[in-house]
Amino acid sequence: MDYETPLFFHVMEYADAADRDVIDMVSGNPDWEPPEALREGLREYADLEPDRFQYAPSAGLRELRVEIAARRGVDAEQVVVTNGAGEANYLAMARALERDQGDEILLTDPVYPYYPGKTTMLGGTQRFVATDDEGQLDPAAVRAAASDETAAIVVNTPNNPTGAVYRAETMRELVAVAEEYDAILISDEVYDHYDLSGTFASALETDSAHRIVTNAFSKSMAITGVRVGYAIFPPELVADARSRHMLVNVATTRPGQYAVLQALRETGPDYYERNRERLRERVATFTDALEAAGAEYTTPSGSFYVMARFEGYPGTLANVERLIDEAGVAGMPGEAFGDSRSEWLRFALVTPRVEEAAERLAAYFD
Amino acid sequence: MDYETPLFFHVMEYADAADRDVIDMVSGNPDWEPPEALREGLREYADLEPDRFQYAPSAGLRELRVEIAARRGVDAEQVVVTNGAGEANYLAMARALERDQGDEILLTDPVYPYYPGKTTMLGGTQRFVATDDEGQLDPAAVRAAASDETAAIVVNTPNNPTGAVYRAETMRELVAVAEEYDAILISDEVYDHYDLSGTFASALETDSAHRIVTNAFSKSMAITGVRVGYAIFPPELVADARSRHMLVNVATTRPGQYAVLQALRETGPDYYERNRERLRERVATFTDALEAAGAEYTTPSGSFYVMARFEGYPGTLANVERLIDEAGVAGMPGEAFGDSRSEWLRFALVTPRVEEAAERLAAYFD
Repeated sequence: MDYETPLFFHVMEYADAADRDVIDMVSGNPDWEPPEALREGLREYADLEPDRFQYAPSAGLRELRVEIAARRGVDAEQVVVTNGAGEANYLAMARALERDQGDEILLTDPVYPYYPGKTTMLGGTQRFVATDDEGQLDPAAVRAAASDETAAIVVNTPNNPTGAVYRAETMRELVAVAEEYDAILISDEVYDHYDLSGTFASALETDSAHRIVTNAFSKSMAITGVRVGYAIFPPELVADARSRHMLVNVATTRPGQYAVLQALRETGPDYYERNRERLRERVATFTDALEAAGAEYTTPSGSFYVMARFEGYPGTLANVERLIDEAGVAGMPGEAFGDSRSEWLRFALVTPRVEEAAERLAAYFD
Repeated sequence: MDYETPLFFHVMEYADAADRDVIDMVSGNPDWEPPEALREGLREYADLEPDRFQYAPSAGLRELRVEIAARRGVDAEQVVVTNGAGEANYLAMARALERDQGDEILLTDPVYPYYPGKTTMLGGTQRFVATDDEGQLDPAAVRAAASDETAAIVVNTPNNPTGAVYRAETMRELVAVAEEYDAILISDEVYDHYDLSGTFASALETDSAHRIVTNAFSKSMAITGVRVGYAIFPPELVADARSRHMLVNVATTRPGQYAVLQALRETGPDYYERNRERLRERVATFTDALEAAGAEYTTPSGSFYVMARFEGYPGTLANVERLIDEAGVAGMPGEAFGDSRSEWLRFALVTPRVEEAAERLAAYFD
C-alpha cells in the first residue's frame, strides 16, 4: 500500500509526550461545551430498554434522517447517517469512482489531507487545482483541469486549512463543471456552523444529480469523538452508497444518533452563535498578536484555523516538532496540506490560550 | 456496482411493517440486558469534560486496547478498535487483498452473507468450500481449494448460521493452510461468549503472521447498536490496517468505547454464563417443539441460531415473507447463506417467545 496517513494523530501524540507545557492547536477538536441536550440524550439513552441498544437501521435512525432532511430541504431517503464526516466523504468518493466515469479526483491545493489519502486508498488518481492566496477557488481553473477522466471534484467550505468560504456563484459553477464532465461535486460542509462571514452557500442550493454534500455534528456540536455525520446523495446515487455503508460499518453508533437527535431538536441558534462569537474573538486576539510579531497570517472567514508564516521557518514536520519542544505551541505543518502552503504553519483556535500561544510564537521568532 | 447487500435489514423492515403480530427471529439482536456497567459507563460519559467528547486515538482508547490485549494475550499495538465486527472484517479482508498475494477469498458454504458482499466490494473473487451437514469445516477441503490465488480464508466460529464450533485442530490446520499459501486466515469470533459446547478454540491460540482475529462486544454485551469491535493483527500487518481505519472512519465512537471499557472491567463471568444458560434453554424449547412438529432442524453448539427445514417449503425470500404474513414468525431465508442451505430457514433465538414461535410453525406446517 502506498496511501499516506494524515499526520494529525502523529502530531497530537508528539505534543502529548512533550516534556513541557504545550498549547495544543493541532487538530480541529473544539474545546467548548457540547449542547446540554446532547449530554441529556446520552443519559436518557443509558436507561432505555435493551432493544434500543441494538442496530439502528443501517442508513440511520428514521427520526434523525427526517430531521436532517427537513433542515437541508431534501428527502429523507437521500440521507445516509455515517460515522462522522470521515465516513461520509469516503462513501461519496467511493460512489463517484464506482460510476466508472473516470478515476481522477480533482482536489484543491491546499487540501485537507484526508482527501488525497482516501483517493489513493480507493484506487483513484489525484489532480490538484491551486486556490488563490485567500484560498478562493476559481471555477474556471477547475473547468480547465477537468476532463473525461474526472470522477469527482472534492471541495471543503468553509475551508480547512485556509478559512475561505466559497461564494454562492463558485458553488453553482462547481456543480455546473461536474455536470459538464459527468462527474460528481463532493462538497464537505462540516464547518457550516462556523461561517464567520455570513456568505456561506451550500452545494445543496443547486439542485443536481451531480453533487453530494457531506457534513457532521462533530464540529457544530463539539463532539468529534461521538462520530455522527451524514451524506446527502442525489436519489440516483443513494442506493449503492447505502450498500457500501452497510458492508463497511453495518450502521452508525446508536447512542450517538439518539443524543444528536435530541440535541438537534432542543438546541437553539444561540448555542451556535455563542461558539461563532468565541471564535471571532480568538481570531482577533491571535491575529493581533501575530501582527504585532510581524508574522504573515491568514484571517479566516470560516472554520477554526489561522495559517501563519515565520521568516526562515518552513512548515515541515521537523519544524512543527521543534516548535512543540522549544516554544510550547503545537500546530500542523503547512506541507501536510500541499505544496502551496509548505512555508506555513496551521493553528487551530480550539484553546482559550490563543493569546499566550501567539506571545510564545512572537517570543520564539523574535 | 454489482455487490449484493445482505438481506437482514430488508426482512426486518418487512416484519415490522406486517399487519399482524410477528415474532422477530430475523437478526442476531440479543433481547437480553446489556451489563449494568455498560449503562453506567454511558451515564458517566455524559458528564465528562468537553475534551472527552473529542476524537479518541484513531486505533482506539489506549486503556481499552490494553484491556483487550491482556484478555487475548496479545500486544496492545496489535489491536485496532473498530465500528463493530463489521468494520473489523472489512479491514481484515482489505488488508489480505492489499498484500497482492492473490485476489481470491475462500469462504464457507453456508456463509454469513456480509463476507461475500465485502469480498465483491473490495474487488476480490469468491470461492466456496462446503461444510459438512453439521457445519464443520474440513481443513483438507480448504487446502484442496487453496492456491496461489488465495488471499484469505474467512471463517466464523461459533458459526452463524450453522451453530458449529470449530475444533482446536481445525483452527490450527486452517492457520497452517494460510501459511502454506501465503494467505491470511481471518477468524471472526464474535460469538465466542456463546460457545454452548465448551469446545471453542480461538485462532489466536496458534501464533502466526498469517491470521487476523475479529470480534466485537455487540453480541457478548448485547449491544449491536453501540458499534464497538476490534481486530487483532499480526505486528507485520497492523500499520496498514490502522491507516485504512483512519481513512474510512477516523476513529470509533468514544462514548461506546468508554462504556465498553467500564463494562469489561466490572462485569463478572456470571453475566455471560446467565446469557448462555438462557440460550441453552431456548435451544431446547425451540428444538423440542420442532421435533414434535416433525421438522428437520440443527442443534447449535454455539451462536444464536437454529436452522429448520419444512417439507415442500424452500428457504426463499418469498417464503420467508409468506411466513411472516401467514404464520407470524420472521426468520431468514436459508438461500441467503448459500446454495447448500437453500431448503432451510434460519431462526435467531433472541426472543422470549421461542416456544410460541415453534408452535406457530408447527400449526402452519401441520
